[in-house]
Amino acid sequence: MTPLKNKKKIKDVSELRQDVVTGDWVVIATGRAKKPEAFLKRDKTALIVGKECLFCYPGIERQEPDTLIYYREDGEWSLRVFPNKYPSLARSKRLVSQEKGIYTSLNGVGFHEVIVTRAHEKSIPFLMKEEVAEIIDAYKTRYLDMMTHKNISYILFIENHGAEAGASIAHPHWQIFAVPVISPGINLELKGAENFKHKHRSCVYCSMVEQELEEQERLVAETENFVAFAPFASRAAFEVWIMPKKHEPYFERISAKGEMEVAQLLKDVLERYYYRLDDIPYNMYLHTSPCDGHDYGYYHWHIELLPKTAIWAGFELGTGIEVSTIQPEKAAAFLRKKEHNWDSYQAY
Amino acid sequence: MTPLKNKKKIKDVSELRQDVVTGDWVVIATGRAKKPEAFLKRDKTALIVGKECLFCYPGIERQEPDTLIYYREDGEWSLRVFPNKYPSLARSKRLVSQEKGIYTSLNGVGFHEVIVTRAHEKSIPFLMKEEVAEIIDAYKTRYLDMMTHKNISYILFIENHGAEAGASIAHPHWQIFAVPVISPGINLELKGAENFKHKHRSCVYCSMVEQELEEQERLVAETENFVAFAPFASRAAFEVWIMPKKHEPYFERISAKGEMEVAQLLKDVLERYYYRLDDIPYNMYLHTSPCDGHDYGYYHWHIELLPKTAIWAGFELGTGIEVSTIQPEKAAAFLRKKEHNWDSYQAY
Repeated sequence: MTPLKNKKKIKDVSELRQDVVTGDWVVIATGRAKKPEAFLKRDKTALIVGKECLFCYPGIERQEPDTLIYYREDGEWSLRVFPNKYPSLARSKRLVSQEKGIYTSLNGVGFHEVIVTRAHEKSIPFLMKEEVAEIIDAYKTRYLDMMTHKNISYILFIENHGAEAGASIAHPHWQIFAVPVISPGINLELKGAENFKHKHRSCVYCSMVEQELEEQERLVAETENFVAFAPFASRAAFEVWIMPKKHEPYFERISAKGEMEVAQLLKDVLERYYYRLDDIPYNMYLHTSPCDGHDYGYYHWHIELLPKTAIWAGFELGTGIEVSTIQPEKAAAFLRKKEHNWDSYQAY
Repeated sequence: MTPLKNKKKIKDVSELRQDVVTGDWVVIATGRAKKPEAFLKRDKTALIVGKECLFCYPGIERQEPDTLIYYREDGEWSLRVFPNKYPSLARSKRLVSQEKGIYTSLNGVGFHEVIVTRAHEKSIPFLMKEEVAEIIDAYKTRYLDMMTHKNISYILFIENHGAEAGASIAHPHWQIFAVPVISPGINLELKGAENFKHKHRSCVYCSMVEQELEEQERLVAETENFVAFAPFASRAAFEVWIMPKKHEPYFERISAKGEMEVAQLLKDVLERYYYRLDDIPYNMYLHTSPCDGHDYGYYHWHIELLPKTAIWAGFELGTGIEVSTIQPEKAAAFLRKKEHNWDSYQAY
């Protein structure tokens, strides 16, 4: 057997522990563990900016192993994907389950990677559509590799934008997490879609798209094959979902045209967040079917964008019921209006 | 029929909307609704302090209707419970369900009340055990009233401590929410307990107490009938659960002795949060059996305390998997140690 090129011995950087009552998983990230005393310092981590940025200092692309790089026509890099320096999960040969009394844990097998675009100061509203499509394409490329690794059950693409939304580095970046479990939160969505299909003989997300396009009042923007709308039961003010109009269970089968349309809608919605809501902090993630070998033909992938306008506190944590202080219909109407000076900004 | 004494016409202050896929509920709090432009101001709300405090200015107790008041021996008030001025839910004669296409909503029927102790500057570590027991007793008293109202399915007791944990008023206060639904988050815990009982013929929480008392390594403190420990799958650093040692499905059946023991443990754990972790912000809630008329003999009420040391961002929101950067065993060991100057503080 020929040894793999980049074969490295990576020790477990974390432990996955399961709540014995709910089945929920938590990651105990021992690889990035802090001493108890470290929790006493509660100053906000300063956002790293300027010339010494970890993500774009000159020559960085020549110093990183295990990196997927996209190049511009002039030969310079435009986008890089690399393993997170402080990963929550790491590659490992074996998934080991441990039982201790009534408790169960797993070693933290998985991937935790970062996607970085070149321009330090350009978030999505300031990138060209083609550059945004490259982010989507990079995620697809990594997805298609990660899904072939055994023990990977679910792959998630996220962005945290703004310090209030958990971003600790100002340079625009996206993250990919591949985990060995399907969490109860994901499962609730899968089961809901499966039950709806069973009951109504149709996909719940297709029905949603149909109703949103017909009612119009929660629509934010659309392209030929994708739609962006404020969900009926928005958990956050100005929440927006982006969804294929046709039934698509598996994100990784997206076409080049699809990537371009998603890029256009993402850019459109995030321009609205930027200009209408003063660059509001947000969390974004993409939900797609698991890659654990089972069939999820009833599911329908989509992107969820959640602005960070409130702290989820005791009531939200205790019940899972979120409180939003603006009607989704009013939020959508507000987002639909374009600023008078927007077009000049768009020429940026 | 004699009209009720405080009969008032209260219009719906909110709407409960259900996510058609997951079954999750959100509250669209139209009673405290903001205009879209209001979300542009993202300054932290200043904590109201000092003599003009809404919760303790002189004479306040004579100006509030619908208030449950506890008195000290000298005739002055010691604790008050009153309806929240900006409620997320409000009393209503009827629970009305609306269907629109595939979507479902309810009017926001329920209770949203506030418990306030008298001393403006005294959080739980600085109250006497008897004063903390009065908070528990006030919650029990309100619970026993609220549970008799039709359309109330679940009642939650919470505290948000510190601005980072969502507290907008500095004066120590607790909140009670009574809702007409059992949310999927609560249901996951109930079903987990039911399934464990079915499979093992024992209560999952009783088994947990047994294992924690035996292993000792996650124990924080205990009294004769209650125990405080860091849960095996802690979602937050220094998370602590307080639980009756014996099987108790229904909080509202707590005895006066039980109230006093819970008060003692709450005070003990929160002193550790105060002295060991520099008054860390936290969210606290009490989970008990629903009051919808069904039997939940397999459930076991308990209190969960979650320090706010991290922002739950894209990965946490997208998967429901939380990342914690300290092992629960190390967190418990740290909390167990008392500060050398603690005893002098306790004399406060």
